[in-house]
Amino acid sequence: MNILVTNDDGINSRGIYELVRALREIGNVIVMAPLGEQSAVGHALTVSLPLRVTEFHKNGEFFGFAVSGTPADCVKLALRTFFDERRLPQPDIVVSGINHGRNTAVNIIYSGTVSAATEATVLDVPAIAVSLTSYHPEADFGPAAEFMKRFTPNVASLGLPRGTLLNVNVPAVPSNEIEGIVYTKQGASFWEDEFEKRVDPQERPYYWLKGRYILEDKDPSIDDIAIRENKISITPIHYDLTNHAFLETLRSHWPKTF
Amino acid sequence: MNILVTNDDGINSRGIYELVRALREIGNVIVMAPLGEQSAVGHALTVSLPLRVTEFHKNGEFFGFAVSGTPADCVKLALRTFFDERRLPQPDIVVSGINHGRNTAVNIIYSGTVSAATEATVLDVPAIAVSLTSYHPEADFGPAAEFMKRFTPNVASLGLPRGTLLNVNVPAVPSNEIEGIVYTKQGASFWEDEFEKRVDPQERPYYWLKGRYILEDKDPSIDDIAIRENKISITPIHYDLTNHAFLETLRSHWPKTF
Repeated sequence: MNILVTNDDGINSRGIYELVRALREIGNVIVMAPLGEQSAVGHALTVSLPLRVTEFHKNGEFFGFAVSGTPADCVKLALRTFFDERRLPQPDIVVSGINHGRNTAVNIIYSGTVSAATEATVLDVPAIAVSLTSYHPEADFGPAAEFMKRFTPNVASLGLPRGTLLNVNVPAVPSNEIEGIVYTKQGASFWEDEFEKRVDPQERPYYWLKGRYILEDKDPSIDDIAIRENKISITPIHYDLTNHAFLETLRSHWPKTF
Repeated sequence: MNILVTNDDGINSRGIYELVRALREIGNVIVMAPLGEQSAVGHALTVSLPLRVTEFHKNGEFFGFAVSGTPADCVKLALRTFFDERRLPQPDIVVSGINHGRNTAVNIIYSGTVSAATEATVLDVPAIAVSLTSYHPEADFGPAAEFMKRFTPNVASLGLPRGTLLNVNVPAVPSNEIEGIVYTKQGASFWEDEFEKRVDPQERPYYWLKGRYILEDKDPSIDDIAIRENKISITPIHYDLTNHAFLETLRSHWPKTF
């Protein structure tokens, strides 16, 4: 199995290192990931600037290719140009992560980790986004990496519908405390956020985003509730954004002339 | 009616100027838009850098507030902090555009114009994203602006479901050639894209994205087909990304133990 691994925390992050270490036991892993941190970049593509690719080494060995762009850039560049140019095999699956922090509910729309997996599905390659539900600097990525080693071959063999990826969130607890897997809906938890106004050393004002995550949605079938119960949450997501139910209302009741 | 106007082409672009000029005839318009061009930024939020706000003048008059961030940043900052701080009224509706170029099919997931409207719906304010389907430098934004002047009050009075926005694409033809309004689905047209490899003056390689848009989806109820028939395409979109049909398959047939 040929696996492309990418992320949004950057090629030098711990999450991608642990993921690659685990997946190298089950397949041929090629890493193409952002050189720098790209959190909350959404589904950005770099169109007004060129992209650079550099070889990135870790512990004295070649680890992967670092790209001066976004997670979606990495996947598009790998699949559409770079792998062919280097005579590298096209991947059977793309795995993005392990993100340092949960990607649930509204967070999904801001997530670079998820956007990389979405870009893979745009290009018709099955994909998984995986996140560890902890922001702690010493968080243990081991259990999430171990899970991906077992789960990735399932996804490759069982298959996914065209345009659909799996968004995996692994609770930040030891492996023996994980209470199984649950297939979930994207929940409706949200951020109560605001901007803190500060003044710089030149006495000019600036604003900095800060927020508190509100776990309001109590539906037992959603992502955040699964995690709270120490279960691995797996949500199938796609990029058909049409609200089909409301489309019927529009067609029946809204104006049709300019 | 209080209207927040933003965009992704930047506060100095022609599309936002024509939109603001038209909407000022029907309401109290406040502009908060990116200082620079932010195309294809997806739903990016600026979290690792502070945001600056400057007052932007046009033709010798105050036009609006320019933000050193993304379209989603503009909406979040306006609604969550800046308008209250300046004692400006909270908007009844957010209008994002007029984008220079279509936002249909897969383009929606990369679009900063749409992401600004999405951010408004995240914050429970109704929103419209509007695009003109031409990249021509001299494209006439007049008909699209005229349409938004008539249509925006409808949206404010008829209302939208929570979390849903309207994605409007206006064909780039004179008003008298527009063949009405059609409510559409997000289509499945796509980009046949690749990266062009070049060498810089220091003889280092770089890659630059280029692509050709393939209008393959022939379903008559989709966005791109409406435009081709000189109709205004209006697609209701939301950010519930769950693939509910495949979720049932996962629950029935996929593994549940770690």
